[in-house]
Amino acid sequence: MQLGVIGLGQMGRIIVDRTLTAGHDVVAFDVDEDAVTAVAEAGATPADSIDSLATHLGEGRRVWLMVPAGDAVDAALDELEPRLTGDDVVIDGGNSHFEDAARRAESTDAAYLDCGTSGGPAGAEVGFSLMIGGPEHAYEACEPIFDAVATGPEGHERMGESGAGHYVKMVHNGVEYALMQTYGEGFELLHEGRYDLDLEAVAHTWNNGAVVRSWLLELCEEAFREEGVDLGDVADHVAGGSTGTWTVQESLEQEVPLPLIYQALVERFGSRATGDEGRFSRRLANRLRYGFGRHDVHRQ
Amino acid sequence: MQLGVIGLGQMGRIIVDRTLTAGHDVVAFDVDEDAVTAVAEAGATPADSIDSLATHLGEGRRVWLMVPAGDAVDAALDELEPRLTGDDVVIDGGNSHFEDAARRAESTDAAYLDCGTSGGPAGAEVGFSLMIGGPEHAYEACEPIFDAVATGPEGHERMGESGAGHYVKMVHNGVEYALMQTYGEGFELLHEGRYDLDLEAVAHTWNNGAVVRSWLLELCEEAFREEGVDLGDVADHVAGGSTGTWTVQESLEQEVPLPLIYQALVERFGSRATGDEGRFSRRLANRLRYGFGRHDVHRQ
Repeated sequence: MQLGVIGLGQMGRIIVDRTLTAGHDVVAFDVDEDAVTAVAEAGATPADSIDSLATHLGEGRRVWLMVPAGDAVDAALDELEPRLTGDDVVIDGGNSHFEDAARRAESTDAAYLDCGTSGGPAGAEVGFSLMIGGPEHAYEACEPIFDAVATGPEGHERMGESGAGHYVKMVHNGVEYALMQTYGEGFELLHEGRYDLDLEAVAHTWNNGAVVRSWLLELCEEAFREEGVDLGDVADHVAGGSTGTWTVQESLEQEVPLPLIYQALVERFGSRATGDEGRFSRRLANRLRYGFGRHDVHRQ
Repeated sequence: MQLGVIGLGQMGRIIVDRTLTAGHDVVAFDVDEDAVTAVAEAGATPADSIDSLATHLGEGRRVWLMVPAGDAVDAALDELEPRLTGDDVVIDGGNSHFEDAARRAESTDAAYLDCGTSGGPAGAEVGFSLMIGGPEHAYEACEPIFDAVATGPEGHERMGESGAGHYVKMVHNGVEYALMQTYGEGFELLHEGRYDLDLEAVAHTWNNGAVVRSWLLELCEEAFREEGVDLGDVADHVAGGSTGTWTVQESLEQEVPLPLIYQALVERFGSRATGDEGRFSRRLANRLRYGFGRHDVHRQ
């Protein structure tokens, strides 16, 4: 089978490599020429434009978009669109909002699959988990590619109609935030608590048979091993947040309480205080204690 | 090596079986005679009292207590105490409070190990994760037993002085509550949300390569498979809570914020409304909306 891949960043590169390794052909494009050269050396056919990629693929195209969510997806689709027919399938493997996925599926001539992709760069070896929405015939047409990119046939599933793939991925990420924050809280108490503990040893012991064992806990163990059990110079600053924000927004629309996922999201916001000033709410609480009790105001 | 096991419930029985399978000798006692008969049939030497168990073991005893946390541990220790010397080792494998463990270690003549045991009945096959506190020489003396009961040498570790094992296990359980609640929130949104999803398929796909993959997520998948994706007649009622409560209490003493673990704990409390009345706080909010806005009061 032949696959076109647009977007050769960290994740796109893995899509290319796993598809090639499974014996398929890949035509690849990226705005970064060096990235195209690199995948050409790995065995992919290089394309110097999206139009040229579409021409290379001929009829019955399967094109995987692995570009940043948002405008970049629409821009790539706009360039592809003149070449697309109902025989083609376009897969959006990024973290698009599920409503964008449904809108794009409506507006393109091709069959459109929204594909949530989880596993990060570590997926290069074990394969990804793929959550896919869109027409069943298009999903079936691409199964050999999904088999290659995922951990195997068990690692991908059609979740439902257009948008369902990115919807499930959105919630997956909300869950991910709260799992991360949960492990963080546990290890913080162990770190600050009343015993002098080797957190790497704790994580290692937990990963062997404990109820809380998980891949994220293996990454905690790795972090303590590589950074030290006090995490060295790792800052109190957690970036990211779009999919978690969407998850909470959707929960408000559905009136489903997500107290832990919400709290994990705002812990990220809380970690991103501006400069040395800290958070306004806590500065006000500091000042109010003076207001009612003449307690000392701690000043910067 | 020879091990005495006191307490032959679900977990104690697994301790016995795994120790026997590894080629060690076991002397076993429980107040339930049928439980003693059952392990005798499996190859253990039955004892009809704690005193008789201690006599059977002779010098250099290793005794594993697997009785409910609290008074039962002190009662068993009281019965053992007249027989114990400094050459003996007593292991408390239950969910005792870490302060009780430290107190007991002080007051017994034997070397005392507090051993947090995680993995539940599923540990029968893969082995447990054991978090151990107490004297190093006692830990080393019991390593062959720990190798047998845990997943192997990787599945047990001496965490530190007396109490450290149960302290780490306490925090483990706090983490466990929040992980459970997190998966619950994600699947609730998927269940109530805007796509008709097969939650078993979602869990299965996530377990193959996704960042959120874990043993608890495998148990989610099993629950959907066995109960149906709407969880059938499974009630909105989560029992348990002592170790989570201790975790939050300790976090208050250490002034370490555990927002997710706290929230997961109180979600359990919230699930345990008395009878059909529901929670008082929400009933009052219902009535207050009438107070300030003359909104209808929903009544039982």
